[in-house]
Amino acid sequence: MGIDKNKKIVGVDLGGTTFTVGIMDFNGNILSSVDTDTPVENGPSAVMGKILDNIDLAINEAKLSREDILGVGLGAPGILDVERGINIFSPNLKWHNVDMVTPIKDYLNVPVFIENDVRVAALGERRFGAGKGRKYMIFIALGTGIGSGIIINGELFRGSIGGGGEIGHMVIDSNGPKCNCGNYGCFESLAAGPSMVARAEKAIKSGLETKVFELAERNIGNITPAIIYQAAKLGDKVALDVFRETSFYLGLGLVTLTTVFNPECIIIGGGIAKSWDILMPPAIQMVKTRSFPGSRDVVEIIPSQLGDSAGMIGACVLAIEKLEKEEEL
Amino acid sequence: MGIDKNKKIVGVDLGGTTFTVGIMDFNGNILSSVDTDTPVENGPSAVMGKILDNIDLAINEAKLSREDILGVGLGAPGILDVERGINIFSPNLKWHNVDMVTPIKDYLNVPVFIENDVRVAALGERRFGAGKGRKYMIFIALGTGIGSGIIINGELFRGSIGGGGEIGHMVIDSNGPKCNCGNYGCFESLAAGPSMVARAEKAIKSGLETKVFELAERNIGNITPAIIYQAAKLGDKVALDVFRETSFYLGLGLVTLTTVFNPECIIIGGGIAKSWDILMPPAIQMVKTRSFPGSRDVVEIIPSQLGDSAGMIGACVLAIEKLEKEEEL
Repeated sequence: MGIDKNKKIVGVDLGGTTFTVGIMDFNGNILSSVDTDTPVENGPSAVMGKILDNIDLAINEAKLSREDILGVGLGAPGILDVERGINIFSPNLKWHNVDMVTPIKDYLNVPVFIENDVRVAALGERRFGAGKGRKYMIFIALGTGIGSGIIINGELFRGSIGGGGEIGHMVIDSNGPKCNCGNYGCFESLAAGPSMVARAEKAIKSGLETKVFELAERNIGNITPAIIYQAAKLGDKVALDVFRETSFYLGLGLVTLTTVFNPECIIIGGGIAKSWDILMPPAIQMVKTRSFPGSRDVVEIIPSQLGDSAGMIGACVLAIEKLEKEEEL
Repeated sequence: MGIDKNKKIVGVDLGGTTFTVGIMDFNGNILSSVDTDTPVENGPSAVMGKILDNIDLAINEAKLSREDILGVGLGAPGILDVERGINIFSPNLKWHNVDMVTPIKDYLNVPVFIENDVRVAALGERRFGAGKGRKYMIFIALGTGIGSGIIINGELFRGSIGGGGEIGHMVIDSNGPKCNCGNYGCFESLAAGPSMVARAEKAIKSGLETKVFELAERNIGNITPAIIYQAAKLGDKVALDVFRETSFYLGLGLVTLTTVFNPECIIIGGGIAKSWDILMPPAIQMVKTRSFPGSRDVVEIIPSQLGDSAGMIGACVLAIEKLEKEEEL
């Protein structure tokens, strides 16, 4: 009893602000894709209802019917019980114990699989993106926080209770600042987007002249990593200093990951990765000189190929690989 | 064609100073054990010859003959090519590209398996020690350096080219001291034995009174972690300060490992673990408060059960598990 690979897969990439529903075939071709805002303020059932609506839209857009769908994958932020299909806690969605599987399963009558959003992006990159054929890889999402999806010996690494890969909270500086998690000196408190904004703010408040402030319309609240990048591209000294410091801490974290995991590659995605040309060369240089010998020679640090689609494509891959595994058994 | 579990296994724990050869049955009973110095200065063939001699001694001591042996496991320091049976480079043994398998295989005519010494200790603890039944665990050897053997989903984690688990060279302090590996702020440069000795030396040189100096017969070159522990047990303030600082950095490293790997347990072995009552409580407290939520709640930090025998028993377990796996195929 094989699975019918002529059928299609639905992938849902659920974020706290927007979400994407897409339809993919088994070869990685995206047949349709629907983006809308996530109605978080209306509560979980409104969000789940909107997901069902958009699944229908995506099916129609691909000129398919519900019978053509073989399974659904769903990537979401938060701590998930993937066996029971429950989102136990997601600060982004403001959810506690939300059943993400049953509504979709009841609607489409096909298997539905869920997994943490960064982990599904890793699965996407591994099957159809920058990590093709890799058995040992780390996908890193660099944004407001720093998350990862880690592949070990070809398998997604989850840890004993699904907490594995929380690399944003590695300690990289014993005297570092307090992090949202309560710990000090965490990787993400020193290398994620908010740390960049905080560095720029500090420079402005100390009276330094910078294009960052102008580009933010002289309103500190408007500063974003993208604005700092824009200023850095114009040669602004403050912006370049912000990047220099961020690259240093990013490099330290990548050194630890290279040394401990000995991966074939580390794939960098997420919003901040878009400033690759300024952010990454110094960090890569650190990896190549300061990681453990052997591991530093083999590791490749490369950008995401799937970009903003990594989550949706990865959600489809989650479903494909679960269905393939069930078929093998 | 099953394997004959009435036969016995030879385990070799090869160190740069001493080595142990033992015979074990499939239930973990040690039937004999022979310890001698490692004749490192006479070169690799002298060492391999001495291993063969001691295998015969151990077989005789157990009142067995060579025909009773089903396989040999060998744990050794250094970077190993486990497929080809070669010790590529070991600073401790002063070896480059030494074939560790062929001499034993030719002598006993049974399969011989090699693996890094800390990894085999992890296998030993998992099967017959503190990690029984664990699928996600980290064994840490705390000594002159800090090494680890990591079990993920029941399997030994090696990384893409066998460099995985080099936790001694995680960066835990962005402004930390230079490490032997060339990097700065490495875990082992802040939490292994030599860092303890350096802290005590610094205190003595700054003119502080301490029992450490007396116990070392007023010779700084005699200071060891064991002497610092002895002084700490007597309430010596300098020794207690050395432990306080070491526990802090040890705790930081354990926080990162707990957060990234989400293990069921971390088992601590090696010489320095013998000062558990002073060293470990503050480090465990850090893990329980500063690691990522969820992971910090499940992790148990526990002492090695096999102690100094972990390497020899683990070498036997390496052979047992390789033979069992071959049988399954």
